[in-house]
Amino acid sequence: MSPSRYAPIPFADVRITGPFWRERLDTVLERTIPSQHAKLAEVGILASLALPKPVPPLTIPRNSHNFTMQVFWDSDVGKWIEAASYALAHRRDPDIEAKIDAIVDDLEKAQSSDGYLNCWYNEREPENRWTNLRDNHELYNAGHLLEGAVAYVRATGKRKLLDLMERYVDHIAATFGTGPGQKRGYCGHQEIELALVKLYRLTGDKRRLALASYFIDERGREPHYFTAEALARGDDPADYWAKTYEYNQSHSPVREQTRMVGHAVRGMYMASAMADLAFELHDEGLKRACEALWRDVTTAQMYVTGGLGPDASNEGFTEPYDLPNETAYAETCASVALVFWAQRMLHLDLDGRYADVMELALFNGALTGLSREGAHYFYANPLESRGQHRRWAWHVCPCCTMNVSRLVASVAGYALSESETGVAFHLYGGFETTATIGGVSVALRETSDYPWAGDVEIAIDPEKPVAFDLKLRVPGWAGAATATVNGDDAALLVERGYATVRRRWSAGDVVALRLPMPPERLYAHPSVRMDVGRVALRRGPLIYCVEEPDNPGGAIQSLTLPRAADLAAEWRPDLIGGAVALTAAARRLTPGDAEGALYTATPPRAEPATLTAIPYYLWANRAPGSMQVWICEDLE
Amino acid sequence: MSPSRYAPIPFADVRITGPFWRERLDTVLERTIPSQHAKLAEVGILASLALPKPVPPLTIPRNSHNFTMQVFWDSDVGKWIEAASYALAHRRDPDIEAKIDAIVDDLEKAQSSDGYLNCWYNEREPENRWTNLRDNHELYNAGHLLEGAVAYVRATGKRKLLDLMERYVDHIAATFGTGPGQKRGYCGHQEIELALVKLYRLTGDKRRLALASYFIDERGREPHYFTAEALARGDDPADYWAKTYEYNQSHSPVREQTRMVGHAVRGMYMASAMADLAFELHDEGLKRACEALWRDVTTAQMYVTGGLGPDASNEGFTEPYDLPNETAYAETCASVALVFWAQRMLHLDLDGRYADVMELALFNGALTGLSREGAHYFYANPLESRGQHRRWAWHVCPCCTMNVSRLVASVAGYALSESETGVAFHLYGGFETTATIGGVSVALRETSDYPWAGDVEIAIDPEKPVAFDLKLRVPGWAGAATATVNGDDAALLVERGYATVRRRWSAGDVVALRLPMPPERLYAHPSVRMDVGRVALRRGPLIYCVEEPDNPGGAIQSLTLPRAADLAAEWRPDLIGGAVALTAAARRLTPGDAEGALYTATPPRAEPATLTAIPYYLWANRAPGSMQVWICEDLE
Repeated sequence: MSPSRYAPIPFADVRITGPFWRERLDTVLERTIPSQHAKLAEVGILASLALPKPVPPLTIPRNSHNFTMQVFWDSDVGKWIEAASYALAHRRDPDIEAKIDAIVDDLEKAQSSDGYLNCWYNEREPENRWTNLRDNHELYNAGHLLEGAVAYVRATGKRKLLDLMERYVDHIAATFGTGPGQKRGYCGHQEIELALVKLYRLTGDKRRLALASYFIDERGREPHYFTAEALARGDDPADYWAKTYEYNQSHSPVREQTRMVGHAVRGMYMASAMADLAFELHDEGLKRACEALWRDVTTAQMYVTGGLGPDASNEGFTEPYDLPNETAYAETCASVALVFWAQRMLHLDLDGRYADVMELALFNGALTGLSREGAHYFYANPLESRGQHRRWAWHVCPCCTMNVSRLVASVAGYALSESETGVAFHLYGGFETTATIGGVSVALRETSDYPWAGDVEIAIDPEKPVAFDLKLRVPGWAGAATATVNGDDAALLVERGYATVRRRWSAGDVVALRLPMPPERLYAHPSVRMDVGRVALRRGPLIYCVEEPDNPGGAIQSLTLPRAADLAAEWRPDLIGGAVALTAAARRLTPGDAEGALYTATPPRAEPATLTAIPYYLWANRAPGSMQVWICEDLE
Repeated sequence: MSPSRYAPIPFADVRITGPFWRERLDTVLERTIPSQHAKLAEVGILASLALPKPVPPLTIPRNSHNFTMQVFWDSDVGKWIEAASYALAHRRDPDIEAKIDAIVDDLEKAQSSDGYLNCWYNEREPENRWTNLRDNHELYNAGHLLEGAVAYVRATGKRKLLDLMERYVDHIAATFGTGPGQKRGYCGHQEIELALVKLYRLTGDKRRLALASYFIDERGREPHYFTAEALARGDDPADYWAKTYEYNQSHSPVREQTRMVGHAVRGMYMASAMADLAFELHDEGLKRACEALWRDVTTAQMYVTGGLGPDASNEGFTEPYDLPNETAYAETCASVALVFWAQRMLHLDLDGRYADVMELALFNGALTGLSREGAHYFYANPLESRGQHRRWAWHVCPCCTMNVSRLVASVAGYALSESETGVAFHLYGGFETTATIGGVSVALRETSDYPWAGDVEIAIDPEKPVAFDLKLRVPGWAGAATATVNGDDAALLVERGYATVRRRWSAGDVVALRLPMPPERLYAHPSVRMDVGRVALRRGPLIYCVEEPDNPGGAIQSLTLPRAADLAAEWRPDLIGGAVALTAAARRLTPGDAEGALYTATPPRAEPATLTAIPYYLWANRAPGSMQVWICEDLE
């Protein structure tokens, strides 16, 4: 790694002490991970791993395309192991480890002698391995199991699953590639690429990087693999249910793509792997492709919450500025994956615009996927509701459940980065680590009540005095940040979202950063037709919404917010476990016509009303009611 | 008929002389009717009538419920005959009549010896007659053929089709009812009920009325016929694809229904038949049921265009105030059928609120279903578009094509009513008739440039002086109407939407009615969440929209209309064949942030712009572009 480049400090090396993430982490550890294991058992996913057994009946019926989501059950297991591993890094738990080890024992038995490991194919159609990469998720499953294996090693040092997966990866590497007799395929759902980069980072085995590179660069080439593969199966490629290879971003070679299309999670996983490879291989062309896609997503296709993909029909993207609120799909997985991608972009270029999106998607689009109590999940994340949207206890496609738990459990891994010349803080909220900078061990303790307050204190304790750059992210929403070093005002030069404090640090040094966190209004680009005349509320990293329980008097959508109204922020300990609420003197529209006519020439009456907004990620944790992010603005 | 009750003057007795409807009628006669016949031939519908022949392959594949829309092809034929007949009443056409007669010859051959007449069942599964009333539209098809037969007699006097249909109705009457051995069934798609009332009105045969009554009153009774019928087929009633009997309004007896639910066209046809029966049978209970449903539809479930049914999934109703604009289904057929229902309600009670809705749905929600040139059709009628919505040249389910043509061709039948004591004008725009009032023949000539102007002149020419009530509708939108009789100001007492001029009329009398027609803003009830902060424009009976061709500069949705801006109306002869456009000094929003960020704390800039609105029914007749009915209002 070149001295100037920052790399994330891994989750296992960062402790969380702040109340916000500590609470979420404890919930995931104590409630989410165990309840997810119980669900995996209940729905038959764990049983599907154990061999030998007769082929069980289909639990998830085939759809009209003769496809069952059961083919990606292995991935759910992999993601659960990964989520549990991140949690274990914070607190070891023999019971959870025993559950993982039992799964690993089953996987060991299920693995074929040649290394192949896929419970669906091994059980049901071993003769059809690798015949439908377009639809059947074999490499995707492998990727998730591999991510689980890597996380388990990092959290516990236990290598058995990793050994199984290394054998499987060897098999995959032998099967796919440009060599004689190899298949020039790649997966219909990107995922294994970023898993292989993680494997490389753990083991240093460059063959893993090369295989990831192959999958990325082969994608979308002509002659098209999925076309040839369909013909080989005896299928008409024109019958592809998704209608277009844009669905899985194989419509053109990835380096030529400039617009993000298709299934959002696939696109985000692909972009994450592209950024990983650009980083590891110093590949400027791949970096430029990432930047073009980033520009497209963040300037024309992203919800204000960091949600992605408006359309349920492709679980993905449609066209620029098409961001309907009530029917927003905005799959939890897609926001989770946007956090992945943003973190990777941030390490290609230490630029706050990437960290801003990473934080946005983390605190809003992704975090809303998990209920306050920790065992209910949103798959789709609308920005407006009549109250009909409630989190699920489980989902027939449970991808989002383990995606949100693995993200929350690994949040420590997104907080800090290090280089040979410094350390960078991206997130605040009580993160501690010990980094080695210039050969000196440096303890760093950040304390704050982030995201509720912007006063951040960082204690620096090097084992001996050492000069390095302390890079502190100043979020895009923060405006004029100020800082002191050991109590003295420090000039704060913010460059591309980071203030660099460069000095010789000694034990007991303290930097205090003050990020102003006034509530503010956000406006969408006027091309977002759904949001014209509307305003969203933000305070710090949190996007707010108005929800009926705080605003009694009928559906929330009849509230309007005068542009001139002051916004007040107040900590409410009783608000869904404690949160900052925003309030404003607003108006509630009532019918202009005494009879309540459906349409009338008389404008509605605007009665005074107090508008109370809560953080978006907390909605739908109380009685059902209407909710809205984009509030009608009143210019009067 | 009691002396005080008004009944419509039939289409065949009213001539159209005004330019607005004359143009539409000529288009339907010269372009729509012939092109629809060609399409019926092209897609195989006409060929399906001719016997004997081998069973042809399915042209419309079965869906996942094993259902093909081909089962209701007979109805398309019936509706085309009906539409053509209305047109023939204005101008006889030997070519069209020859085409109808050829169809009638085919139907004669296709009819079974017992009178049964259904081309699908006769061809494909004669053994399965009357085994799936819930889904397979046998009685619906019969109803449409019957409506065609009645209209053809009224237009031309030719009775052969009517004779066939009378035989079929006899067969139906023998098959269904509460007598021993009869099936206690009714159709999954209401339609035959109102056709039977038309037959009764033509022939005076009260058995037809009794059969219609039976179908209405049997509907929704327990034990549920569709449940028993499914069990008899060996199907599980729980597998009903529509999930609920609300879909076809058989979830409860019709007299107990107070909320309009389910498939919109089914609901409207049912309500129309209920109103017909209430009228003919002086059935106060049925009238009260109609009034409850009317209240529900018009105060909570109707688009400002007279569109009905927001949801594509059931082609129907959802819940009160749920009226999304861009995804509005608002099927053309449903607005056509709302015209039917409103006209029937109007004759239960001569109250302008019914005529207002009749006119609204006619000029807006229904008329937009037909392109200016007369051979393209909207099935769904959104109130907002990115420009992706275009009229079809045909539709796999062509119900709307012949529904809009039969409505336009029969518009003369909605203009006037008569009683023994007077005559009532409901519509204006150049309608002439000769009524017999108190035994005296009275020629009535209404001339106006309606809907473009509200100056209406009515010349009254009785063959000898006679006293009667001339009832003139004063639309709800008209505000303070004034009138003169023979040039002298007349005091105009408007009661329930009608001004009554009661005098002894002599040849040469002229009444001039002046209906003010200022452009105005409409506001939705604040519970219509999609329209909060928005305004629609109306002038006279026409609802307006803004469409991109008149408002260059990007998507229409970034226009905002200040509440204080004057609205100007101007006749533009070059606007899609001539129309009144509305203009206002408005604003076009441009990004507040120089870089065009997707979200920014800086409000958008509001640049001055002229907003030009056109009648909604005329949209999508030029190059594709965005369109919006509900415009963002600017209170500044």
